[in-house]
Amino acid sequence: MRHGTADKRGIMDNVYVHGYDSRESLRLQDQANTLVELLHSDTSYPAGSRVLEAGCGVGAQTVTLSRNSPNALITSIDISRESIAEAERTVKAAGFGNVQFQQADIFNLSFEPESFDHVFICYVLEHLSRPVDALVILKNLLKVGGTITAIEGDHGSAYFHPDSEAAHRAIECQVELQRRAGGNAMIGRELYPLLTEAGFGSIRVSPRMVYVDSSKPQLVEGFTRNTFTAMIEGVRDAALRAGIIDQITFDKGIQDLYRTAKDDGVFCYTFFKAFAEKK
Amino acid sequence: MRHGTADKRGIMDNVYVHGYDSRESLRLQDQANTLVELLHSDTSYPAGSRVLEAGCGVGAQTVTLSRNSPNALITSIDISRESIAEAERTVKAAGFGNVQFQQADIFNLSFEPESFDHVFICYVLEHLSRPVDALVILKNLLKVGGTITAIEGDHGSAYFHPDSEAAHRAIECQVELQRRAGGNAMIGRELYPLLTEAGFGSIRVSPRMVYVDSSKPQLVEGFTRNTFTAMIEGVRDAALRAGIIDQITFDKGIQDLYRTAKDDGVFCYTFFKAFAEKK
Repeated sequence: MRHGTADKRGIMDNVYVHGYDSRESLRLQDQANTLVELLHSDTSYPAGSRVLEAGCGVGAQTVTLSRNSPNALITSIDISRESIAEAERTVKAAGFGNVQFQQADIFNLSFEPESFDHVFICYVLEHLSRPVDALVILKNLLKVGGTITAIEGDHGSAYFHPDSEAAHRAIECQVELQRRAGGNAMIGRELYPLLTEAGFGSIRVSPRMVYVDSSKPQLVEGFTRNTFTAMIEGVRDAALRAGIIDQITFDKGIQDLYRTAKDDGVFCYTFFKAFAEKK
Repeated sequence: MRHGTADKRGIMDNVYVHGYDSRESLRLQDQANTLVELLHSDTSYPAGSRVLEAGCGVGAQTVTLSRNSPNALITSIDISRESIAEAERTVKAAGFGNVQFQQADIFNLSFEPESFDHVFICYVLEHLSRPVDALVILKNLLKVGGTITAIEGDHGSAYFHPDSEAAHRAIECQVELQRRAGGNAMIGRELYPLLTEAGFGSIRVSPRMVYVDSSKPQLVEGFTRNTFTAMIEGVRDAALRAGIIDQITFDKGIQDLYRTAKDDGVFCYTFFKAFAEKK
């Protein structure tokens, strides 16, 4: 984990806090499948429109974008060559042909100004130390009247029953590691001011709360356990190495997060989806 | 503020943490008016059905209940004689005639078992040290197949931009005072397990998130400033007297909460609305 260099090297580079191992790819994929209806069902682009997906990672959202907008012309970029390759394999395996992939750094793009009708950016701004600069760059790539759709989580929106100080401290490890890497794991709540500062108009933020109790076994498994708790569990070694937390507290925090997946447990988390227009 | 006696004396007695002054009545009224669509628009009861509103306070929700269910037969109870009198004046002033008012303690009611088709309970369970016992009592008053609708806030669901440690500590004062009075200001997230434990069936919890940015000036004024922040500000003297916080931190916390109402600020809070059935 190298610190403070995210800014120079752009998105999803080696300081990308979630890492690149295959379990992580699976988690992102699981996350999209579990939350796909909640987060993406209201995103589809007209036939022939040119859409830029900025930071597609391993293609978790690209498959859904492509499915929901089969006749849009999607360009998906990512700074990681490995991720782009995996995204391309995933989208081809799913049988979609309307996506072009390109390795590129959001802070060093070669597209002409006003080349796109729409920009889609999901789970990317959280990793940038200059999110407003990135949004301005993306705005310049949009035609006037074009739209941006941004989706981000917010780890400060996580609360649960039974409540647990250790669980909150374990979550804070992820927030702190991401902060040290130049990012912001609590960026969801900031989409409105960030898009405002970047000069977008007609900004509308739509929070998408994931509420999980035992009447929703698919979300208990797919979100509480296999997405959120698995993600926090995944920073264990980095957090202990960085000396942010002691092992006993972290392990108790993870145990307490899994505890919220039991019959009398409840887990809440909110994603923020923002829509805005280039005026 | 007397501590530890809420249990014996039931709901909304002298330890009722919000107090009974007229500003507080106004705030509750404001809250219901601002949030009425979000929280209550999907509650209406059939003509002729018998509805118990358990803990009507000063009638903030009673007006809406009565308006949405003009031909239901509503009985609204509260333990406070003063609140009941004010509720009755408010409902009459609004021109509604389908509500009967009665001073009564939820733990000492004289209704026959199975006298009601529906129970409505809003911002009451948060003040009880034995919420499950109260729910069991209310369940016994329901006919088989009857429903309960419960609405509660959750102060642990409050987060905002700019974030502020002092603001969180000021909110924690309200939570701690309510805890010392036998209540739970973070009960919203617990409605599912509480209703389960009380033996209800077909439980469904619907979170109602209030997301406020400056594109929603009515909510900035009506919720962030005049409802939530005013409520926290209202416990200042009690919190300082109880030694829970120092004056400088509390006042900074309040200032920081008002700061979230500025143009680049964002405020989030979630109410939980639960529906369940007596099987």
